[in-house]
Amino acid sequence: MNPNFDTIGKQFVEQYYSVFDQKEIRGQVAIMYHPTDALLTFEGQQFQGVDAIAEKMKTIPLDNMMRQITTIDCQPTMDGGVLVNVIGQLKNSAENDKPLGFSQTFVLKPANNSFFIFHDIFRLVIHNM
Amino acid sequence: MNPNFDTIGKQFVEQYYSVFDQKEIRGQVAIMYHPTDALLTFEGQQFQGVDAIAEKMKTIPLDNMMRQITTIDCQPTMDGGVLVNVIGQLKNSAENDKPLGFSQTFVLKPANNSFFIFHDIFRLVIHNM
Repeated sequence: MNPNFDTIGKQFVEQYYSVFDQKEIRGQVAIMYHPTDALLTFEGQQFQGVDAIAEKMKTIPLDNMMRQITTIDCQPTMDGGVLVNVIGQLKNSAENDKPLGFSQTFVLKPANNSFFIFHDIFRLVIHNM
Repeated sequence: MNPNFDTIGKQFVEQYYSVFDQKEIRGQVAIMYHPTDALLTFEGQQFQGVDAIAEKMKTIPLDNMMRQITTIDCQPTMDGGVLVNVIGQLKNSAENDKPLGFSQTFVLKPANNSFFIFHDIFRLVIHNM
């Protein structure tokens, strides 16, 4: 197990959102995903591989969102990777809408002296109770 | 990858909470965790192995909580396991408190014709924005 899992996970989260949250360059997050094996589940929709994920990124309707991260929890995996769970909020900066909670789970695995995203599950936390 | 990942993940979630949500038998969820390698991160506190996890279970202050699951997302892992992310709400049935959102992420892996929990990250979704 990688003893630096916590640092790796938190640095990854910072790097990922610094790209994702700029709509002009959002598509560049695709290179962080494993080319063929990466799985993305976005609001219940499933995508596999960089090409399908890059296509999906283009359609995500988050234009002027402000992101606030509440918590980042990391665990080391047996194969030297990192499981990361992020809780936070997204708010449309152009409107006075109520901020929406989100939960995003990543699994990172080492390859070629770097880490690739193998798993990504994103959900807005919206309940009807 | 296990083609039945979605069924396995959802049946696991049902089974897990059916035990966890009964305070008298909550400790029995411990047998679902891998004896030595299971990692639990509960509200930022980390525990490893069944003994430490079972001890923690005894102290969780959820006596009369009603659970409502909002979404369950599952992905297959390369080693035949399942990544599961659950979003839901917990409400204290004895009071009129507002329900609290939660996010829980599990990684299940096959062993001895069954599945063990290797990773569990639990967070109440509470923001201060």
